[in-house]
Amino acid sequence: MAKRIRLDKSIVTASDRLAADLARRYDAAGVLVLNLMSSPGAGKTTLLEQTARALGSRFRMACIEGDLATDHDARRIAEAGMPCQLINTGGGCHLNAAQVGRALDAYRLDDLDILFIENVGNLVCPAAFDLGEHRRVVVSSTPEGDDKPAKYPVAFRLADCVVLNKIDLVRATDFSLEAFRGYVAGIKADLPILELSCKTGDGLAGWLEWVAAARAALGRRPAPAEE
Amino acid sequence: MAKRIRLDKSIVTASDRLAADLARRYDAAGVLVLNLMSSPGAGKTTLLEQTARALGSRFRMACIEGDLATDHDARRIAEAGMPCQLINTGGGCHLNAAQVGRALDAYRLDDLDILFIENVGNLVCPAAFDLGEHRRVVVSSTPEGDDKPAKYPVAFRLADCVVLNKIDLVRATDFSLEAFRGYVAGIKADLPILELSCKTGDGLAGWLEWVAAARAALGRRPAPAEE
Repeated sequence: MAKRIRLDKSIVTASDRLAADLARRYDAAGVLVLNLMSSPGAGKTTLLEQTARALGSRFRMACIEGDLATDHDARRIAEAGMPCQLINTGGGCHLNAAQVGRALDAYRLDDLDILFIENVGNLVCPAAFDLGEHRRVVVSSTPEGDDKPAKYPVAFRLADCVVLNKIDLVRATDFSLEAFRGYVAGIKADLPILELSCKTGDGLAGWLEWVAAARAALGRRPAPAEE
Repeated sequence: MAKRIRLDKSIVTASDRLAADLARRYDAAGVLVLNLMSSPGAGKTTLLEQTARALGSRFRMACIEGDLATDHDARRIAEAGMPCQLINTGGGCHLNAAQVGRALDAYRLDDLDILFIENVGNLVCPAAFDLGEHRRVVVSSTPEGDDKPAKYPVAFRLADCVVLNKIDLVRATDFSLEAFRGYVAGIKADLPILELSCKTGDGLAGWLEWVAAARAALGRRPAPAEE
């Protein structure tokens, strides 16, 4: 068991070095990079489709899409007007910095304002892998239940923003907004929660403002989260 | 990269040996073991609560509950009348055979008919770890979208049964039952799909029958899934 731990540590260290290289590439080009994480089906792709349509005339945006298999999501995002590079992990449970580094080569970063990374649908493993991003966004959704922040604390603790999607289903799913907000505050005080529905458009303006503000604040990286 | 792959292989082999030990313990005691996997919030715990209430007078049942953090789900299952041993993985993305082996020591297996293992909420990693179980159940839910079998093929390919939960939300989520069935058939022909709602009780009888049939068939392990 001790041996296993040593191996994992050395892998993480190599990965952190690659992530730092990515961060330097982003900053040299002046592109804001947002890493989106969630459970399968929480709505990351729909959020990016809406973002492409709403902000496409204001920012030059692109996406790196991570999926175990299929090009379903990459096609949807591209059809919404955002260029999208697909990484099929073939079973891999998260995106790593080496994969993102290779996918980046498809873009002229100098020509971009914002790059979105849609991570593999998994509320556990992606949180452990730094991709050099400026901000992390966790997308949660009401049908998953209001206690997910308490049950998956690492992803929420390392997030800079929580999008709570599918608020149109609050009543149909017995979801308590109050309980959800309490669980989030218990994990990380002052973590912003953006409550919205990608389906109805309710609350979407708050997300678009958050993205624009993050873009405006580029250069000021947030302080590292405490462990 | 080649080195990384070699390490993973040797870890899996040790894990497989432990899983084979577990399988022998289950069979010596004559207890049916079902390993439940899903995305966070698909409804594994609610399904087990319903199962405890519906089959509690017919079978002697117990549960091993895997969660990164909290005892929320373990308490719910115990309150529904099914003894439950909690494994908090502290960030670990799946249950492994060593953890299950230790949790098993809390039970007299000879006194059980059915043991449920509720795995960590993650549609990727748990599929790669054999816990010696007789059957694997993947729980999917309509709000996650109808293309999840195509996007997370490994979990579905290795499953013996798919429970599609939250069918009360089909209309509210634009979920296509026809598309879902097609994706499942594309991954593994003849994989049974049990469509139900743990909330309304619709379709629950089909699941209870499937569990009872699996219990009746104990001793006849299914043929290994093709890779």
